[in-house]
Amino acid sequence: MADRRLITGFSNPTVKFLRSLRDKKHRKREGRFLAEGLRLLTDARESGRLPELLVMARGRDDHPLLAALEADVLAAGGEVIETGEDILEKITGKDNPQAVAGVFPEFDTALAGLDRAAAPLWLVAQAMRDPGNLGTMLRTCDAVGAGGLILLDDCADPFSVEAVRASMGAIFTQRLARARWDEFLPWLRAGPGQLVAASLREAVPYRGAPYAAPCFLVIGNESRGLPEDYEQACDLRVTIPMRGRADSLNAAIAGAVLAYEALAALAPESQA
Amino acid sequence: MADRRLITGFSNPTVKFLRSLRDKKHRKREGRFLAEGLRLLTDARESGRLPELLVMARGRDDHPLLAALEADVLAAGGEVIETGEDILEKITGKDNPQAVAGVFPEFDTALAGLDRAAAPLWLVAQAMRDPGNLGTMLRTCDAVGAGGLILLDDCADPFSVEAVRASMGAIFTQRLARARWDEFLPWLRAGPGQLVAASLREAVPYRGAPYAAPCFLVIGNESRGLPEDYEQACDLRVTIPMRGRADSLNAAIAGAVLAYEALAALAPESQA
Repeated sequence: MADRRLITGFSNPTVKFLRSLRDKKHRKREGRFLAEGLRLLTDARESGRLPELLVMARGRDDHPLLAALEADVLAAGGEVIETGEDILEKITGKDNPQAVAGVFPEFDTALAGLDRAAAPLWLVAQAMRDPGNLGTMLRTCDAVGAGGLILLDDCADPFSVEAVRASMGAIFTQRLARARWDEFLPWLRAGPGQLVAASLREAVPYRGAPYAAPCFLVIGNESRGLPEDYEQACDLRVTIPMRGRADSLNAAIAGAVLAYEALAALAPESQA
Repeated sequence: MADRRLITGFSNPTVKFLRSLRDKKHRKREGRFLAEGLRLLTDARESGRLPELLVMARGRDDHPLLAALEADVLAAGGEVIETGEDILEKITGKDNPQAVAGVFPEFDTALAGLDRAAAPLWLVAQAMRDPGNLGTMLRTCDAVGAGGLILLDDCADPFSVEAVRASMGAIFTQRLARARWDEFLPWLRAGPGQLVAASLREAVPYRGAPYAAPCFLVIGNESRGLPEDYEQACDLRVTIPMRGRADSLNAAIAGAVLAYEALAALAPESQA
């Protein structure tokens, strides 16, 4: 296809730009992020998100979904680049890169744009440091039919390659918002919303707790958990049984166990 | 302390040996694995597992738990090495290594050694490829008071640094077994045991399903799920609601959601 540009050199400026998107600082400056793999890019396309720039490996297998993606990108005025697998490896940082990657503009993550009535359930991550946990929480949000994920305070970058990968496409379908706690709490209190913390202090059992929509489930930092004053500001503190030596679950696991319990309470028809 | 050996060179054979343990092939040949961080090593010690070799960074903060660990290792005839942070970084592959790491002999993972009556609940992972998922599943096993994790077919290495790290110490407290499916199924059928698959086919809702102890919850490969004939061989197929675009959860998440549901059925007193 004549519209494809072929790039074979590692020092090409476009290759340098693409590689730079693996770095948080550059993503922020450019307002762009990278997603890789035909499945993820197809999820994006079906959710109405097209990459501005599509990079494909030469010698990849033909696939009708890839052809459709390419056509849509070109029709929307985007750019399509062909390159070698070695260069794609450098771009994605993977030994066996999937045959395609795309560059997307970052989404608006302002709290103001979030419609709390859009879903009965929301996940909230506070100072979450592991991008894989953020991606997995987005994926769980999709599975429980949540509205999205709200990131409080200093979280890992949800637009990192690791987070986007772990989200399995949910980065394109779930709402994502970022806020400081002292911005989030007034926003929450300005409308209906139940704030629920996973907690070990003065908590009720998570099973059968009085969840109410719209329900915001807050999971704290992987090592420190949620600050005590945040917990105290919550409407409900629930505890998950811990029967072993450890006193905590993986953060994404805790979020999912709570989310499925809340789902059963808020949408009993989902359990049929 | 006179019993500490100081190593300052990257080319020292002990450093080379330690670095080699980051590689699956070398771990297998040596029958040894690496665990890092004072918290993990203290968990090991409290579970009666001491490293044969303890490596500490020079200039680390003193800590009574580290002193206790060192004393126990020496008393048990183990070796203690001091080295620079730069070398510890090379050994653990981390930019900011925790100030201590230890070498442990791999545990016996034969199915024959497993006492199914020891716990009401077991997790089973089939062809799980992500070591982080294996570690997280071990951590969940600990949390629900499961007996341990059984790895079927070609799984990632549970003794990899990533799996050990994600287990948060559960690698030292949970039983771990490895088997092929055609070895596992006869073993299971030779005694009491309910085999439960997370499934989309002919399944009942996971909530309120008739779980029975000892209950073995099987989670399949991250991409392909469980093979159909494995599913058919299970006593119970349960389905977790999927309300979004995707048709699956992260494997460790699915395991935890099922494990907590089964726990509530099998040990209702745990929910108090």
